[in-house]
Amino acid sequence: MATNSHINPNARRRKEKLDVNELFNELHSGQVSALSRAITLVESTAGGDSAFAKAIIKQALPESGKSFRLGITGVPGVGKSTFIESLGRQLIERGKKVAVLAIDPSSNISRGSILGDKTRMEELVKSDQAFIRPSPAGTTLGGVARKTREAIILCEAAGYDFIIVETVGVGQSETAVHSMTDFFLLLKLAGAGDDLQGIKRGIMEMADAIIINKADGENQTAAKHARREFKNAIHLMPQKDHGWPTQVLTCSGLNNIGITEVIEEINNYQTHATANSSFTNKRNAQELYWFHQTIEDAIKTNFYNRPEVIAKLAVLEQKVLSKKKSPFDAAGELLAL
Amino acid sequence: MATNSHINPNARRRKEKLDVNELFNELHSGQVSALSRAITLVESTAGGDSAFAKAIIKQALPESGKSFRLGITGVPGVGKSTFIESLGRQLIERGKKVAVLAIDPSSNISRGSILGDKTRMEELVKSDQAFIRPSPAGTTLGGVARKTREAIILCEAAGYDFIIVETVGVGQSETAVHSMTDFFLLLKLAGAGDDLQGIKRGIMEMADAIIINKADGENQTAAKHARREFKNAIHLMPQKDHGWPTQVLTCSGLNNIGITEVIEEINNYQTHATANSSFTNKRNAQELYWFHQTIEDAIKTNFYNRPEVIAKLAVLEQKVLSKKKSPFDAAGELLAL
Repeated sequence: MATNSHINPNARRRKEKLDVNELFNELHSGQVSALSRAITLVESTAGGDSAFAKAIIKQALPESGKSFRLGITGVPGVGKSTFIESLGRQLIERGKKVAVLAIDPSSNISRGSILGDKTRMEELVKSDQAFIRPSPAGTTLGGVARKTREAIILCEAAGYDFIIVETVGVGQSETAVHSMTDFFLLLKLAGAGDDLQGIKRGIMEMADAIIINKADGENQTAAKHARREFKNAIHLMPQKDHGWPTQVLTCSGLNNIGITEVIEEINNYQTHATANSSFTNKRNAQELYWFHQTIEDAIKTNFYNRPEVIAKLAVLEQKVLSKKKSPFDAAGELLAL
Repeated sequence: MATNSHINPNARRRKEKLDVNELFNELHSGQVSALSRAITLVESTAGGDSAFAKAIIKQALPESGKSFRLGITGVPGVGKSTFIESLGRQLIERGKKVAVLAIDPSSNISRGSILGDKTRMEELVKSDQAFIRPSPAGTTLGGVARKTREAIILCEAAGYDFIIVETVGVGQSETAVHSMTDFFLLLKLAGAGDDLQGIKRGIMEMADAIIINKADGENQTAAKHARREFKNAIHLMPQKDHGWPTQVLTCSGLNNIGITEVIEEINNYQTHATANSSFTNKRNAQELYWFHQTIEDAIKTNFYNRPEVIAKLAVLEQKVLSKKKSPFDAAGELLAL
């Protein structure tokens, strides 16, 4: 698998020769190589100010937004790849063009990024109706998330009408995926009791549907039991803004069982959310979320990176912890700098 | 009930004549009138830079932190006052000095603030071992929270060793209370089905214990059923950092049933959290949370209040929503100002 560090130098060299209109036209006509190149270029300059990256996104923006964006999370071992393979195949059978992207802020270090090993989705990789892209490299979640969000826009402009964004849930990456997708799936395992270990705070309440995977063979009874437990638990949680009750389904990605029901659930949600306008409202709220989040991340980073703040911060934190200053007083001192 | 707007002019006039050492000594010796006056002064200048307020907090800080801080939330009608009355009385019987504070960012408007009507806690009000203070006035949650947090410090310096902070949960006030207390109680109602309506996102996962109140008379069966449901739901949630499993208890604040068990649960938690150091770790994390929260609130407010930002913000938001600019591009434009 080629990593960004291998691609970037070539990309930069090629950039000078590239015509943005030409690349966009190729991308817009559905050429996979153009889409790949556009994503690579946008990724390599994200956070920077490359006129080229800006121009390609500017052209893609009006053509974007027409897909259904599905977020998927679940701990390693839950069978995400097999589930996506099975789901993606069925979507393609129904005439969809499927793009699979990933957010994994740890991929920079591990290289063993989710989706990196494309062979895990053998059939999907072979289909000319599927586009699979590993998690972009990056040192901050904000940077990685921005790259993935811009990749969504490019995929949509290239005609992909079903975008799957998966994450293993490192750091706050579920929140990032939740904030860039229309529907958020939590994949769970039944049996072995370990289904309850890996769950992170807030994920249950983010999920628009909980899918208990590997509900096959000896696992079926445990899966049914887990389903009942989750259904009861969800009953005790606040309703979503979109008013669509969170469903709990069981499936087997491996055996292609229950996948049709997942697609039906997504379709039903889409019909419901379109009818009550919550689909558009959520998208608009997400756009503004990323706008404000980018601003606030930047002003925080700017503040904490100022040399006089760096010089004072640790000292003030110690004064707070040793009760020499109240947190408010210490904050005031830092802000006065 | 006197509101801040009535108290402040007097407070300011009195300030000149006051000696900070004298007031602190009176407060430290447990004089309720000195504690009240100190809180009023700190409240009236919170956010400002009064040398007096700073000085009294500075003196109180080293004497603070020795209490147990209990947060309580629950929708209106759940019986918070009756519960606190019953709990407070039993704590006093066990030799505690109890202070009851409140956070209600809406109290400014409604005047009908929680704890405003002190008659709801008749017996507690009469006890010389209890100190009850309504929610401070304020226009922002940050301001109200800061005042309450400084009131905790003053109460502790005055010898109160059990601090109860209650909230009705307006806006993000539960998060504020959760971030200033050692143990967070969620009060719920059983029966009538409406127990599930008012619950807000994230509250279940914040709770260190869920108490089903009004488990008396005909409600007892429903309370037992609700208890079982919540126990199952909690089982599906991520464990807390402190490693203490969230308990679900039933009680009747009105009939003093189950309150002893609540106190025992709190005591057991305290023993556990002290032994594994999570008690101190949580307190330290909270101090740093308020330090950074204050900083970040201030830099955000400063940024969004700049005239050139105000002039540009709405226009850029519209460009984002109409897909003329990506959120990242628009954010960059605002940041460049």
